[in-house]
Amino acid sequence: MADKPLAVVLLSGGMDSCVTAAVAAQRYELAVLHFNYGQRTEEREKRAFREQAAFFRASATLEVDLPHLSAIGGSSLTDRSRQVERFDQVGHGIPSTYVPFRNGQFLAVAAAWAEVLGAEAIFIGAVEPDAPGYPDCRPAFYAAFQRAVDLGTRPETKIKIETPVIHKTKEAIVRLGLELGAPFQLTWSCYQMNDVACGVCDSCHRRLQAFRAVGMPDPIPYAISSTDP
Amino acid sequence: MADKPLAVVLLSGGMDSCVTAAVAAQRYELAVLHFNYGQRTEEREKRAFREQAAFFRASATLEVDLPHLSAIGGSSLTDRSRQVERFDQVGHGIPSTYVPFRNGQFLAVAAAWAEVLGAEAIFIGAVEPDAPGYPDCRPAFYAAFQRAVDLGTRPETKIKIETPVIHKTKEAIVRLGLELGAPFQLTWSCYQMNDVACGVCDSCHRRLQAFRAVGMPDPIPYAISSTDP
Repeated sequence: MADKPLAVVLLSGGMDSCVTAAVAAQRYELAVLHFNYGQRTEEREKRAFREQAAFFRASATLEVDLPHLSAIGGSSLTDRSRQVERFDQVGHGIPSTYVPFRNGQFLAVAAAWAEVLGAEAIFIGAVEPDAPGYPDCRPAFYAAFQRAVDLGTRPETKIKIETPVIHKTKEAIVRLGLELGAPFQLTWSCYQMNDVACGVCDSCHRRLQAFRAVGMPDPIPYAISSTDP
Repeated sequence: MADKPLAVVLLSGGMDSCVTAAVAAQRYELAVLHFNYGQRTEEREKRAFREQAAFFRASATLEVDLPHLSAIGGSSLTDRSRQVERFDQVGHGIPSTYVPFRNGQFLAVAAAWAEVLGAEAIFIGAVEPDAPGYPDCRPAFYAAFQRAVDLGTRPETKIKIETPVIHKTKEAIVRLGLELGAPFQLTWSCYQMNDVACGVCDSCHRRLQAFRAVGMPDPIPYAISSTDP
């Protein structure tokens, strides 16, 4: 383990970043990074982060509070006066849960930490096919940010931004996670509840569909299962 | 004033961003943004920000705390156990006051706020010629970040990153500020003191040199003037 290079892994508490961490752990020692930004399920996600950090035996952990994301607003995820859509209300546009330039802010913090730690890579669990229209989940965005990191850090700093699940469907992510032994029982995906997952927000719905397609039970409890026959 | 479009302006409290704001104010209504990140002169810079915000009659203000910059460390500006170099100790490399990917983090927050406000531009007072080797002050970094913002925000969002003083020397910045009536008396540049500027850190030294070259007195008080004959 001492011989592995270090990577910063963004762990939201959710499934995509958990599988991303499992991919990273094959080649790297992990420094795990989590953000609290006034999202509805902040406390539950923090618990999921800490449990996953322990599972992956991370050599460094950093929890960053970004309360200005709520102050800035513009998203139903951080603004309690707005409603999170049910999965069947999400249209083709950008959903209300989009948080303006959130992943840009996350990556900027990750780049700073990676530079100070001497980490060789940043892993982020962004997903394009399943992400419902979030602009900051597109591969082109990560290529552009890579260039900004290359140019905005010390000349000797070389940090590669890795997005190993970006082209995968939720179903493929579940399959990969099962293959790598990712701790799905320690993850949290629900957008709006903190104790039992709601089962009807878009995030719960897509997660449940993926486990169903793979033919495996989802190990976390739900209030209602949107895929019940 | 109601007819002007809106721009987000990063106001650190210092001279470069103050002149940048004066440039922006010619064409835009201002939304001013300030960061507290555990820098040595945080309190004094916050006061300078608030006084400049009032001077420019900003239509929106946002103060963002980024305490994780101190937690991440890697800079004498945020780590009190390290020393800020005197101007004559600064070599040709990247100085100890470089804060890893600081401007990247600032721009990411600015992009989020600009998107929610519907602002058309972000103004940042980065300076290349006088900035002693900071990688995140180079024009190429801003071009790369521009592309990340274009790709990482909503398709209808168009935010232009403007760096009007990036190619200017400190002397040219003082000249431009005097021409535009920038409130230099409300600015703060010292890296290490909060009441009277030290006069010997690299930032004080370059500021004093610039006023001397222009032949005007610097309106703020100094403990020692490094350019005294």
